[in-house]
Amino acid sequence: MTVTSPQGFRASGVAAGLKSSGKQDVALVVNEGPQHVAAAVLTSNRVHAAPVAWTRQAVKDGVARAVVLNSGGANACTGPEGFADTHHTAEHVAAALTGAGQETGAGDVLVCSTGLIGIRLPMENLRKGVDDAVAALAADGGPDAALAIMTTDTVAKTTHVPGPGGAAWSVGGMAKGAGMLAPGLATMLCVLTTDASVDAGTADAALRAATRTTFDRVDSDGCMSTNDTVILLASGASGVSPTEAELAEAVRAACADLARQLVADAEGASHDIAITVRNASSEDAAVAVARAVSRSNLFKAAVFGNDPNWGRVLSAVGTVPEEVAPFDALALDVAINGVQVCRAGGVGEPRELVDLASAREVLVDIDLHAGDAEATIWTNDLTHDYVHENSAYAS
Amino acid sequence: MTVTSPQGFRASGVAAGLKSSGKQDVALVVNEGPQHVAAAVLTSNRVHAAPVAWTRQAVKDGVARAVVLNSGGANACTGPEGFADTHHTAEHVAAALTGAGQETGAGDVLVCSTGLIGIRLPMENLRKGVDDAVAALAADGGPDAALAIMTTDTVAKTTHVPGPGGAAWSVGGMAKGAGMLAPGLATMLCVLTTDASVDAGTADAALRAATRTTFDRVDSDGCMSTNDTVILLASGASGVSPTEAELAEAVRAACADLARQLVADAEGASHDIAITVRNASSEDAAVAVARAVSRSNLFKAAVFGNDPNWGRVLSAVGTVPEEVAPFDALALDVAINGVQVCRAGGVGEPRELVDLASAREVLVDIDLHAGDAEATIWTNDLTHDYVHENSAYAS
Repeated sequence: MTVTSPQGFRASGVAAGLKSSGKQDVALVVNEGPQHVAAAVLTSNRVHAAPVAWTRQAVKDGVARAVVLNSGGANACTGPEGFADTHHTAEHVAAALTGAGQETGAGDVLVCSTGLIGIRLPMENLRKGVDDAVAALAADGGPDAALAIMTTDTVAKTTHVPGPGGAAWSVGGMAKGAGMLAPGLATMLCVLTTDASVDAGTADAALRAATRTTFDRVDSDGCMSTNDTVILLASGASGVSPTEAELAEAVRAACADLARQLVADAEGASHDIAITVRNASSEDAAVAVARAVSRSNLFKAAVFGNDPNWGRVLSAVGTVPEEVAPFDALALDVAINGVQVCRAGGVGEPRELVDLASAREVLVDIDLHAGDAEATIWTNDLTHDYVHENSAYAS
Repeated sequence: MTVTSPQGFRASGVAAGLKSSGKQDVALVVNEGPQHVAAAVLTSNRVHAAPVAWTRQAVKDGVARAVVLNSGGANACTGPEGFADTHHTAEHVAAALTGAGQETGAGDVLVCSTGLIGIRLPMENLRKGVDDAVAALAADGGPDAALAIMTTDTVAKTTHVPGPGGAAWSVGGMAKGAGMLAPGLATMLCVLTTDASVDAGTADAALRAATRTTFDRVDSDGCMSTNDTVILLASGASGVSPTEAELAEAVRAACADLARQLVADAEGASHDIAITVRNASSEDAAVAVARAVSRSNLFKAAVFGNDPNWGRVLSAVGTVPEEVAPFDALALDVAINGVQVCRAGGVGEPRELVDLASAREVLVDIDLHAGDAEATIWTNDLTHDYVHENSAYAS
């Protein structure tokens, strides 16, 4: 139930020696058509990796035949040489696919990388990996590809969303990401595939709408990556043309499923926290307030300690400027896992009624009493394991 | 070398049973004149504690005779009852001082509280503490007052800055704050005293200028408090009227000294990190870039692991919007403790040359090559002890 679930795709995942662990680290997803529509949403970080710069350019025409992804190195902050490495990787994939009978130009190969920043990729290993990946391409290769893009992920993340009412088309997907999860986008790579017949504009609109309310609302640690990439490939192999709304909903559902899986596997987390802000003056206001709470290290550490510390929620809410989110501080209500711990900006039900020790999910519900808009941001608690993984990651 | 170092002040610190530890928890600083000038800078958090609302109002006329401070309870998010508690505290201090021969109105008593949010203060204990504090007032009571405002601080923070060139006036001060340190202001209470003869406008301007470049540039954990208060009291007891510039510089030096002490004692920290951004297009741009780096949990966890992870510096720099801080990502230089680990957005000197294991101070120097403005933000690393202290604090 992954990128090879829709018709018209082959994929593979191989070990090329980029990871010191020897695990799979090069993935390839190939769209065999008949259509080769592509769209991508990329990190808004101004310090972006070479593959992001490449992919942004390569996807502009709305066409792509393949996506090559490597873990074991982000190829970010690697200068002109790093960009040349990405360019060369795309050329190597194109030549290998063409040699295998699938005529492909380098400009139709999208590239994604993930791993440490500031280190060049070992190109000899990567070339060999690409050759092996082309040879291993299979119609059931999706699970291998999903394994090969993992970094600190503990499980592979895949999804498959059928079209509405038993339609003959569907959306498949895979993603990686466990740390550096923050908006615009989370630190993640994601490839979605569909056998629906759609044009590039429709694919792009569906993907942008989907990421805005899914991946962009995961904020594991407030850190925006240099490499985030979400790609949608459409093969048209089902022969079915869904409506724009049908496509958008299937893509959104696939992104939402993968985003929830990212949160569940965030580095070192012991709780998944959903911060819902309701009765805001606008959706943007709701997002801003939820985002402020999702970035409070104090609140996140309290949740790790199973402490429903609503005072830390309110102190984070209060940092949002009035022009961004109008509200009356003396009207704020907060419920945690259904217990109304704060009422009208003051003490509500006893916090002892909230049992976080036996809950993985923490639902924080903030009522601004300032309108009727709503949004939810997902984050995680701040744990010893988060500190451990991120202080030891590079060593 | 504290609030009672300048002439015209008495202070005290007593144990009133607000802290379960039985340690000192009520402090009093009294300005005996002949002048009773006061200024205050207060948290910009929209969810602010009752004492902040009180002090904002009480200091408006530029006059105050006393500051009463309690640890062991923030009196934040406590509703109208919490505000009544603060009002009553000020009245009680005024009555006790008047009874002791120092005619004082409640409106000339500033109030500060620190501790847990969302819990009412035990007023009977506090009243008794105020009575004891008035009885204990002494011309050498500054050190006791500094002890009584501590929460998770491990050491008391005090300062004393003489006027220029052996002048007869000086600035003394005390502060508390160890967690929830972030701009506008850090989670902290600070009382400064001076025996200079100044008017309220000059005192206010000096205090605002000083906090802008000192306390506002400490960002221990990105969390803004509900209770931050910095107060300056001027007695005029020296009979000397310094120039505005002389006063401003002495107040700035006192704030800078206390701010550095706060960083050095931040909860669970093993490194103090100074992030200097130079050659920015404006001071605001430099602050925005430095602030973004200071809030990167990933970079701060790397520093805890003694890893000079400049890729995480760059990925944080890249999150600042271009309209806030123009720069070319391919021109960025980063040095860590003097080693140029990143040059022109790419790999510089080997990161192994940076020895963080034996350094408490980590100096991150970011050159934007976009102008000639500069700013420094101080922060700390993200450690197991930070997580521990903040997950166990309320329990």
